[in-house]
Amino acid sequence: MRNYRLRLYAFVIALTTTIISGGDISAQDSKLVVRLARLKIDLAQLEDYTIALKEEIETSIRLEPGVLTLNAVADKNNPADITILEIYLDDDSYRKHLETPHFKKYKSTTKDMVKSLELTETTPILLGTKSNKKNY
Amino acid sequence: MRNYRLRLYAFVIALTTTIISGGDISAQDSKLVVRLARLKIDLAQLEDYTIALKEEIETSIRLEPGVLTLNAVADKNNPADITILEIYLDDDSYRKHLETPHFKKYKSTTKDMVKSLELTETTPILLGTKSNKKNY
Repeated sequence: MRNYRLRLYAFVIALTTTIISGGDISAQDSKLVVRLARLKIDLAQLEDYTIALKEEIETSIRLEPGVLTLNAVADKNNPADITILEIYLDDDSYRKHLETPHFKKYKSTTKDMVKSLELTETTPILLGTKSNKKNY
Repeated sequence: MRNYRLRLYAFVIALTTTIISGGDISAQDSKLVVRLARLKIDLAQLEDYTIALKEEIETSIRLEPGVLTLNAVADKNNPADITILEIYLDDDSYRKHLETPHFKKYKSTTKDMVKSLELTETTPILLGTKSNKKNY
């Protein structure tokens, strides 16, 4: 747990420095795992799916030190088309996430709601996010 | 400027409360503008494009109170396929962003580098992001 904390602090410092200096977090500079998930949900089950997704995200962010970002959005014109930007501290954090009870529950609850799932491994170009302490 | 600050503080508090309580930020709860931009870049000009994009993101996050997130990632298998998740405080912040010198410079610099651009307006389901103050 301590190791996670230290690495998270290092990440936050690196990100802050990065944004302020105008540099970048690239695959060379960090071990971040950054993915895009694109899902098409059965429209008849969209409400139930959304409830399950929110619970999964909220629990992961709260309990898992290595889950940094799970940003889920729905296409305004096609609300059953969902995209999730996922950022994990490193590959180990990502693999641990897949083994958590809350992730397994989400997968089993939603398996008949998800019509398609496309996962894209990505390289971050620049993860620019306003800090609530810096820049103001 | 003061008004922006107050609204940003309110947003940060709402987001923190939201994540901790497991609630959500929906279109009903906030005026956030959340978009996905998907771009295909001319591979021969990808390096120049990436430099221009980084400069645009870094400057926007640093100078514009209403630009909260610009997360740009490239597909690992197709590095010229780029996705940007954009979060603005409200529609006014988004419209102001389009009129800034740095955004206009980015648009003119990159106009012959971008082969296609697909913009998707989205509704946030849950924007879960680890706070560097909370949860630890």
